[in-house]
Amino acid sequence: MLYGFHPVVEALRNPSRRVRRLLATENAATRLFSEHPNLAQRPDIVRPEEISRLVEPDAVHQGLYLEADPLPLLRLEDLGPEALVLALDQITDPHNVGAITRTAAAFAVDAILTTARHSPSATGVLAKAASGGLEHVPVVSVRNLADALLELGESGFQRIGLDSTGGTALRSLVSTRPTILVLGAEGKGLRQRTRACCDVVARLDMPGAIKSLNVSNAAAIALYALSAGSADTTSPE
Amino acid sequence: MLYGFHPVVEALRNPSRRVRRLLATENAATRLFSEHPNLAQRPDIVRPEEISRLVEPDAVHQGLYLEADPLPLLRLEDLGPEALVLALDQITDPHNVGAITRTAAAFAVDAILTTARHSPSATGVLAKAASGGLEHVPVVSVRNLADALLELGESGFQRIGLDSTGGTALRSLVSTRPTILVLGAEGKGLRQRTRACCDVVARLDMPGAIKSLNVSNAAAIALYALSAGSADTTSPE
Repeated sequence: MLYGFHPVVEALRNPSRRVRRLLATENAATRLFSEHPNLAQRPDIVRPEEISRLVEPDAVHQGLYLEADPLPLLRLEDLGPEALVLALDQITDPHNVGAITRTAAAFAVDAILTTARHSPSATGVLAKAASGGLEHVPVVSVRNLADALLELGESGFQRIGLDSTGGTALRSLVSTRPTILVLGAEGKGLRQRTRACCDVVARLDMPGAIKSLNVSNAAAIALYALSAGSADTTSPE
Repeated sequence: MLYGFHPVVEALRNPSRRVRRLLATENAATRLFSEHPNLAQRPDIVRPEEISRLVEPDAVHQGLYLEADPLPLLRLEDLGPEALVLALDQITDPHNVGAITRTAAAFAVDAILTTARHSPSATGVLAKAASGGLEHVPVVSVRNLADALLELGESGFQRIGLDSTGGTALRSLVSTRPTILVLGAEGKGLRQRTRACCDVVARLDMPGAIKSLNVSNAAAIALYALSAGSADTTSPE
């Protein structure tokens, strides 16, 4: 279930999405087809209140509502030798996971690894915060994160945990590919066994009075730093 | 009006805050004084429902509620020669402004510049998202952002706009102090006159399918990049 202009448009443009039902207000349908004339899916035209009844109270649906099958899950074995993967260790807030997904899509992250339990399902709130990002970053769902990290280590992945008590400053970290960046929940950080399965635990040094960031802000900085590490030699910046 | 554990604790520890009223549930008061035995302010003990009635529906108040005077505003003239300042050009979403404030506090930003109109007031939602950051980053409120940028330029500030259409990659930007980083609202970007008053407009190059970030994520990356620029010679990282 998706709503809002960006999430719905990106889903409709994603050939892997199997659409079940598209509802649009008259205004939203006009905007949709004037901005995206090639979309094949025809909406059922409804009144705004009909969509409001289907979504969370106060959700900003912008006149678009889509029901679609979940995207196919990726498997660990499908990740390539240049992969950049993000793992979420019990991060459950859908606003945060959505914002992380959007930023992951911007930094060309190849997959987001989550545990089958303790992860939010792809609800409307998450999709709205992801602003279309869900369509571009496949999800790998594993039963046990530590076991998955062990398996990825055997495949040559550099496993980087991010934690305020890390032994290496993020700035001085030399990263190699394939890479998996592991983020813990705010306040709790990485679980002990997750941390033990990382090759390096990096910390983000901050000069100010507040020593912890919102997890999506921390993820954005880490992805920027990691893409700097690999991009410096190839990018004309 | 503040609620939630972190925002209320940080406010109570801030000597510049004039407290009007502190309400706490029995449990929250116990936690408060066991973690912070030196706090002078005594709460009125209430039941959780009494606090719920005073805050937004579904707000996670954690049993603490504080009414206090707003912090004194800073003036442009008060900013020092090493200042790092953040300007918000019509960013109004309180979740975003709160997350930006928290990250600004982490990166030792000296002030946040906003316009008197088109900026959110320091509501509970903003303070909660800022997680105590409000107590550490003074706000400068100006009538006209472009005029303020002109004035800061005359005082030697490097004025850096952040916009996806910027002519300089953030990575290659050489920053000097004092600096003001100007952020526009999501989707709209910097207003034309704001942009014209910047010395340089920097863009954040992103390799992925989504080309725009949540504004607080973009702010976090820009602050990290700017503190890299000035910290490389002084920090042992």
